[in-house]
Amino acid sequence: MSVAADHAERLIVVDWGTSNFRAFLVDIASGDILDSRRSASGLKALSQPEFPHYCASQTDDWRDGGRVPVYLAGMVGSARGWSEAPQLELPVSADDLADRVVAAPGLDNVWIVPGVKQVTADHVDVMRGEEVQAFGALALADPATRAAGVDCCLPGTHSKWARLEHGRMTAFTTLMTGELYHAVRFHTLPGEPARDEAPFDAAAFRLGLSRAEAAGGVMHALFEARSRHLYAGLAAGQVGSFLSGVLIGEEVRAMRGARPDITTVQLVGAETLRESYTLALEAAGLHVNAIDSDRATLAGVSAIAARHASRPT
Amino acid sequence: MSVAADHAERLIVVDWGTSNFRAFLVDIASGDILDSRRSASGLKALSQPEFPHYCASQTDDWRDGGRVPVYLAGMVGSARGWSEAPQLELPVSADDLADRVVAAPGLDNVWIVPGVKQVTADHVDVMRGEEVQAFGALALADPATRAAGVDCCLPGTHSKWARLEHGRMTAFTTLMTGELYHAVRFHTLPGEPARDEAPFDAAAFRLGLSRAEAAGGVMHALFEARSRHLYAGLAAGQVGSFLSGVLIGEEVRAMRGARPDITTVQLVGAETLRESYTLALEAAGLHVNAIDSDRATLAGVSAIAARHASRPT
Repeated sequence: MSVAADHAERLIVVDWGTSNFRAFLVDIASGDILDSRRSASGLKALSQPEFPHYCASQTDDWRDGGRVPVYLAGMVGSARGWSEAPQLELPVSADDLADRVVAAPGLDNVWIVPGVKQVTADHVDVMRGEEVQAFGALALADPATRAAGVDCCLPGTHSKWARLEHGRMTAFTTLMTGELYHAVRFHTLPGEPARDEAPFDAAAFRLGLSRAEAAGGVMHALFEARSRHLYAGLAAGQVGSFLSGVLIGEEVRAMRGARPDITTVQLVGAETLRESYTLALEAAGLHVNAIDSDRATLAGVSAIAARHASRPT
Repeated sequence: MSVAADHAERLIVVDWGTSNFRAFLVDIASGDILDSRRSASGLKALSQPEFPHYCASQTDDWRDGGRVPVYLAGMVGSARGWSEAPQLELPVSADDLADRVVAAPGLDNVWIVPGVKQVTADHVDVMRGEEVQAFGALALADPATRAAGVDCCLPGTHSKWARLEHGRMTAFTTLMTGELYHAVRFHTLPGEPARDEAPFDAAAFRLGLSRAEAAGGVMHALFEARSRHLYAGLAAGQVGSFLSGVLIGEEVRAMRGARPDITTVQLVGAETLRESYTLALEAAGLHVNAIDSDRATLAGVSAIAARHASRPT
């Protein structure tokens, strides 16, 4: 018999990505967060044998001798993580994910949520971690919205736009907005003035948004970080916000082209990203429903865990 | 009286960029290259006081006691180079460049060719080095082409598309294709399999070209380097060519959109770049007239030097 079938009153949700580890102790009945921990011990910081030890060190005092289950989502389930979980082919429901949860080797009652993939002649794409947030956003939507289907924008290193209808994810697209921002800012000449952190500059960000739509496209607009810094008054402290505007503007422009039917976006992200993405999405005429990414993660994993705990064993 | 007015029979042309130094000893009457030298001593490798010493070490034995003039083009004329030369506002002719050549401090009869810039509300752009190649391509064109005007594509770290008509450059657009390729290949997750050099793979390059046109745009297409490597048979050794196809495909797509009137492109580049760009431009239905970049540099600088040497002093 699975330990998960003990119907614990609490649940531990871990979002474990490339750069970060975030753990939440959740009261199942109320959904309240009883405690949480964060660190920079993402995949990049750990070698494979360290995963179970690190997980235990961060969760043991919450686990009531192992009775409280731990569910892990994110890149922790990739080949370079703790142990590889499958990526399920779309369409996928939250129940499908629950049915394919895998046990993490080395610790009892610790489970890795699968990722998803989409492989067609025209589109090849992969996701690990954002799928639980997308299903969380769906669970948090009002019944009418849920019935009509939702389009989630999940900004980040690899931004995801996911379509959910009738309880299933049916399509998604990854755009490497965040990772390109980092690569341009730290590894190109136009990014040089933005090497140091500077506060968000809304005017420079909006200028970047508009440049992403201009002749020459995103690869010219990025270069304008340099030419405008030299000759059009773009200050060093504005270059980062300008580059961010160009890349987020290109993301929104491209997805508007790919999905002209979208009118409302469920924007699932941390607060700082929600601010800039809301500006960009609204500038493109889209209605934005903002959802905190932690809240979406908890709602999604909780739904998956409930199904997993109640499954026949 | 300027030493340049001695009407030397020879001329030294130096293309001095961020990463490379290339010098050519040219016979003015025939245009023949009598000798040449190349090194990796670009701007990144030198501190400001080193420029005159390095230039002297590479050219002194060609200079006939200083009588043979040296013309420098490229980033050597930027604020981080030897000495800052102006960037002239478009429209600009080769004669305009010759009239604004500046003396390089510390050595006699060594001259820096100005760059160009375009500053309008809609477009801000800068160029240093490619302008001499564009004027060289114009000089090398047959009289009918020259009269009709030419569109040059000058691929590189910062690719330039330049329009020349009636002997003047009237517009240009920079796209940071080469620098983004490097940043993605060496500083992102999708680029990881391409960290090591691999031979050009035409099939992967063509796949990349087609993905640049697909839904989601260039920022999704770049991510497909990862998803296709995981799930669609893109081998590690093909990832670099795929990424190159995506970025060059995006460059051509963007410029086709900005300039739908272009039917023929003067492609000015080194041999390896000409191969991939010819594939991309022809796949987009453009006619390509390929010109070696060294030949274009020599033709352009020679025209500027002839005007400079003959100017009233």
